[in-house]
Amino acid sequence: MLRGHRTWEFENKPVIISSATVGGPFEANGKIADDFDLLHEDLWLGQDSYEKAHQVLLEQACERAIEKSGVPKDNIQFLIAGDLINQITPSSFASRTLSFPYLGIFGACSTSMEGLALGAFIVNGHGAKYLLTGTASHNAAVEKQFRYPTEYGGQKPPTAQWTVTGSGAALLCGEGMGPRVTSATIGRVIDMGMSDPFNMGGAMAPAAVDTLEAHFKERQIDPSYYDLIVTGDLGKIGHDVSKELLKKHGIELSEEIYQDCGLMLYTDDQPVLSGASGCASSATVVYGHLLNRMKAGELKRILVVATGALLSPITFQQNETIPCIAHAVSIEYGGGY
Amino acid sequence: MLRGHRTWEFENKPVIISSATVGGPFEANGKIADDFDLLHEDLWLGQDSYEKAHQVLLEQACERAIEKSGVPKDNIQFLIAGDLINQITPSSFASRTLSFPYLGIFGACSTSMEGLALGAFIVNGHGAKYLLTGTASHNAAVEKQFRYPTEYGGQKPPTAQWTVTGSGAALLCGEGMGPRVTSATIGRVIDMGMSDPFNMGGAMAPAAVDTLEAHFKERQIDPSYYDLIVTGDLGKIGHDVSKELLKKHGIELSEEIYQDCGLMLYTDDQPVLSGASGCASSATVVYGHLLNRMKAGELKRILVVATGALLSPITFQQNETIPCIAHAVSIEYGGGY
Repeated sequence: MLRGHRTWEFENKPVIISSATVGGPFEANGKIADDFDLLHEDLWLGQDSYEKAHQVLLEQACERAIEKSGVPKDNIQFLIAGDLINQITPSSFASRTLSFPYLGIFGACSTSMEGLALGAFIVNGHGAKYLLTGTASHNAAVEKQFRYPTEYGGQKPPTAQWTVTGSGAALLCGEGMGPRVTSATIGRVIDMGMSDPFNMGGAMAPAAVDTLEAHFKERQIDPSYYDLIVTGDLGKIGHDVSKELLKKHGIELSEEIYQDCGLMLYTDDQPVLSGASGCASSATVVYGHLLNRMKAGELKRILVVATGALLSPITFQQNETIPCIAHAVSIEYGGGY
Repeated sequence: MLRGHRTWEFENKPVIISSATVGGPFEANGKIADDFDLLHEDLWLGQDSYEKAHQVLLEQACERAIEKSGVPKDNIQFLIAGDLINQITPSSFASRTLSFPYLGIFGACSTSMEGLALGAFIVNGHGAKYLLTGTASHNAAVEKQFRYPTEYGGQKPPTAQWTVTGSGAALLCGEGMGPRVTSATIGRVIDMGMSDPFNMGGAMAPAAVDTLEAHFKERQIDPSYYDLIVTGDLGKIGHDVSKELLKKHGIELSEEIYQDCGLMLYTDDQPVLSGASGCASSATVVYGHLLNRMKAGELKRILVVATGALLSPITFQQNETIPCIAHAVSIEYGGGY
């Protein structure tokens, strides 16, 4: 199971028997709109607060994933979920609706892969037959909490990113058909002294590189093992920084193989500055677009390195730098694994 | 491993090879002051913010636990931690200092047992040789975030509780000497429609009862299996409510066997109203006082049901009720397990 210091190899290769993604109106105009199971025209989702809309995003992604699987709801044993909102209330309130035994997690935008890593570990170790994991973010709820009131119309520098309104959930099972979770590398907190919350991509890049390096070393594989390696939400700036850092560490990845979820969601004419961010960036791209490509036979082995900036408005106000983390999970489909 | 729907039985019985607790000046005057490894006279811990003091509490508990074990720091593979502060920054910043691969969790005051349950699962399943888990709370940091500025001197009703300043951490290993983690039952979110944030104990009691009932049923044991069953921080009011509810469900527990960590920390003349609360309530009582009593041979089998109120100031302002959760973990020492 353990391989090296912080990498798990899952000998039973838990299966993602189904997954689902939900998006908002901005995502409906994006590059991978067709990959969403449900797209909302209304940013409020008919709720009276953005936080409640945020909660409904996660509920719907979980419900769709369960529906698609055909597994009776009563058979789902655990939900592992988290998000960026204070005290992760959208996830906890969604768990109240869904009523599954619940493990709340927090890894900022790395939450998607923290949940998948833990969920795969539990299913692999026969701690659950069916386990659901997911995360969500809501542009307006997150902007309101982390930045200025949107009504101010404050301008942002080109290094800033756009928080995705959406959710992605995956249903894991010890057996069945579908893409399999084969390994996970857990991140360390890396802080290179950056303090600009409008350049999270740049701050998070070293954490992604640290985890990638550990993953290849501990799993004793070459990056070429994967058809695609995606980071979570580094955006243009962070993606470039990470490529340079990887090169310095002797890891050269082509543009075709090394990509970023934050650059896959929106079209070039959508005003997202450096790219997408938020918990739903990697969750919607991986649990929608990428799993679809795997099922279509386009990709056999992918590695997802979800990145998270572990700051808060208070730590920023207290002049702290930004501690970052990245968790990597490999998903494989077809072939000899 | 899985027993019933949401209970894990750990066949390898991960060992708590060491643990440590840290407290503040108020805890130094409490009932179990002798059980703390370190007590601070200064609520600021020499830091320039309460949030940084909060972070230092966790760092010190982790460092003391490692020191006491004699395990080289480099051998610790994972830290599972979380707390009540927005974006759990004290835990994430402590992880930056400690530099272990890190899994952030959130379960409000149930965080202690969420971490111990997940940590024991991972060690039991050979996902780590050495794994650290811990949590902390800081009275002033939590009051500032959840309630009124303390400078207002706002009066509280007798149902309110006192947030513990402290931290507890436990170092788990697959082998060695010490109390062993034998099982865990994961909580569901239970919300009985209570909305008064000054009566968290009453709100959380039904979640504790739900988890206790599931634990006895799924593990197929009688409550008398345990020498002591402790809830996390129900306080006087919540403890009484839970006893009544248990009785209604046919579970009668004596006052000697069924207790609450929130009633064990402070003396009767400390002004804590209904009792202690906060992540450190169960963490300091269990990882200090109770493990000491186990090692002294006074207790052989205990069950800890850490309770958490998953609300936030925003959900309260939005007129939401309080969703609650409770995670139960059994610890056994000596005898035939």
